[in-house]
Amino acid sequence: MTMTDAAVPRGLKGVIVADTALGDVRGLEGFYHYRQYSAPELARARSFEDVWYLLFEGELPTAAQRDAYAERLAAARPLPDELLELVPALASPLTPPLAALRTAVSQLGAIEGMPPTYDADRGTIHANALRVCAATPVLVAALFRASIGAPVVAPREDLGYAANYLYMIEGAVPDPARARAVEQYMILAIDHGFNASTFTARVVTSTGADVAAAVVAAIGALSGPLHGGAPSRALDTLDAIGTPDNTERWVRRAVADGERIMGFGHAVYRTDDPRSVMLRDIARGLGGPRVDFAVQVEATIERVLAELKPGRELHTNVEYYAGVVMELCGIPRELFTSTFAASRTVGWCANILEQSADTAIIRPSARYIGPEAPQPLPPPT
Amino acid sequence: MTMTDAAVPRGLKGVIVADTALGDVRGLEGFYHYRQYSAPELARARSFEDVWYLLFEGELPTAAQRDAYAERLAAARPLPDELLELVPALASPLTPPLAALRTAVSQLGAIEGMPPTYDADRGTIHANALRVCAATPVLVAALFRASIGAPVVAPREDLGYAANYLYMIEGAVPDPARARAVEQYMILAIDHGFNASTFTARVVTSTGADVAAAVVAAIGALSGPLHGGAPSRALDTLDAIGTPDNTERWVRRAVADGERIMGFGHAVYRTDDPRSVMLRDIARGLGGPRVDFAVQVEATIERVLAELKPGRELHTNVEYYAGVVMELCGIPRELFTSTFAASRTVGWCANILEQSADTAIIRPSARYIGPEAPQPLPPPT
Repeated sequence: MTMTDAAVPRGLKGVIVADTALGDVRGLEGFYHYRQYSAPELARARSFEDVWYLLFEGELPTAAQRDAYAERLAAARPLPDELLELVPALASPLTPPLAALRTAVSQLGAIEGMPPTYDADRGTIHANALRVCAATPVLVAALFRASIGAPVVAPREDLGYAANYLYMIEGAVPDPARARAVEQYMILAIDHGFNASTFTARVVTSTGADVAAAVVAAIGALSGPLHGGAPSRALDTLDAIGTPDNTERWVRRAVADGERIMGFGHAVYRTDDPRSVMLRDIARGLGGPRVDFAVQVEATIERVLAELKPGRELHTNVEYYAGVVMELCGIPRELFTSTFAASRTVGWCANILEQSADTAIIRPSARYIGPEAPQPLPPPT
Repeated sequence: MTMTDAAVPRGLKGVIVADTALGDVRGLEGFYHYRQYSAPELARARSFEDVWYLLFEGELPTAAQRDAYAERLAAARPLPDELLELVPALASPLTPPLAALRTAVSQLGAIEGMPPTYDADRGTIHANALRVCAATPVLVAALFRASIGAPVVAPREDLGYAANYLYMIEGAVPDPARARAVEQYMILAIDHGFNASTFTARVVTSTGADVAAAVVAAIGALSGPLHGGAPSRALDTLDAIGTPDNTERWVRRAVADGERIMGFGHAVYRTDDPRSVMLRDIARGLGGPRVDFAVQVEATIERVLAELKPGRELHTNVEYYAGVVMELCGIPRELFTSTFAASRTVGWCANILEQSADTAIIRPSARYIGPEAPQPLPPPT
């Protein structure tokens, strides 16, 4: 141990571990950005491929760059045959989708012989990052189809990122409004400051490990309930409430019983979550009774929470309207977290690219608090 | 971001991120311990199963506890049939063994439905940790045998941890001296302070993810050249030198060319690495011309390095004699890092058990250093 008592907050909260040009979250302002642009503005005006380019290449693409990049990304989608053959064995209705995805991405990296970032040139690291990001939604859809006993649908190169994703899940080209809503959600989910899975990806990269190793580790971190959560839980709340006039009674009962109300509150935001604000707009654009119900439930819960927990500023978080939007767009509930993971893979890989240009291993210390050592070893009994 | 400039050293060096009762490394004293006992003393006097018990249960076992535990660990070795069937598809001569192991452990966790530690009771977490530690060497051996086209050898319950490991690799019961040498090496490798893979396992666990997710992430971190290194590289040095009288010329040339000499130097130890000291004893116990050569090369390199790089205190690290011992015991070079990983899995899992009793997510921050945000979004071109 090199320092004996570098006093830092529990869980390293607020401790700066890296410099990044990829973006930031300003929790007090309800604002987050990718590079120098507001993330919700990017989701409003740009394609998923544009934002991917921005994060990987450092700037928004020109028209010519956009076309060339979209072609390259689409060409990187198809899975190797050896991996496709394994998909039925990796997917089952009993396997959590993120666990299956973790295995499948690991095997993709193994099959394709991704070299350690420590030994690889920038172009190779970049190509492997792009490959993992392009293949992950294909794996999510293939594992899902296999898990329900449906034939796997190969990706189409002529569809954009989100439209192709829905196409592979459903086996039919989605209508443009749904594809665009999913695309906007997935743009909003690409990155969000220095969360635990992003940090995990950077720690693994800092040892010089390959891109797949870092993404697999990040998927594992995301699968933790304290991080990835479950966007479907907010829908479970809507289902449990059932009808609008039951909302107030339900939430007062839940608060009295000390239950956490899923879809409300965030570790960083003390205002409206900007993702939630935009996803509510997207949901309203799609419209329908489920959206009206969700908006009414949100208003009632916020009012009752403000009364029962004054000063707590409990607003809907990204899970709440993400669940509503994905449900409206036909994404099955069991795929909500995997859909998030597919999108977030682009953010992880942008962080992996940035971290792999650094040379310092991330290796903190622990404080030994056990009995004084060495104690004499007792003889075996 | 909650703090804007918590100044900490690069790579979190020396920053305390957790309290642990599992052990520590005292780099200046050339000493490391598991709980309150010297690790080399444990390797000298105890079995792998004893030390595993010590780390998992907090104390050394009584005779009755030892027998019951050894039985439990041996019973936890066999792989599920669904995973055995996948082994040939996961192993190939071209797949790095750690990448194959990463996929296989991930699939083990998926098949066995390991629940998030966040939701699981202590007994379940403990059982899953034990299962992963018992199955990992079985997977290493099975993947190796499949990669060379040999039939997989099922584990035997009547052999100890290390003897069974060699048995599964070779298909024959090893002689006791070799089994004991490997056992002692594997005890020495179980844990070593707060290294990058152990930290990775704890970060993933801190999100509430399952045991397999955390171990898979740690395997990924270990695969990085800056962490896991390659014990076989030290043997490559011996091979490159070839004959004793070539040693001095070779090392002077290597230093003049600015090459790093594999097997020498450590980030923490400024003295002899206690693992290296003990492994040299073990190698000498096994004896033979290869050991004599390694001892002679060590002495010459240390003398020349002390002359050319005065004050640097460059001694053999764990890789040097670990490679010699494993080679003498018949472990193929391509399995050196996997052998280390199998043993270290016990250390990772002891850390996972400790971390899963904590409730704080490990989530530091990054500092945004890009252009000021928000900038107005340019119209698409």
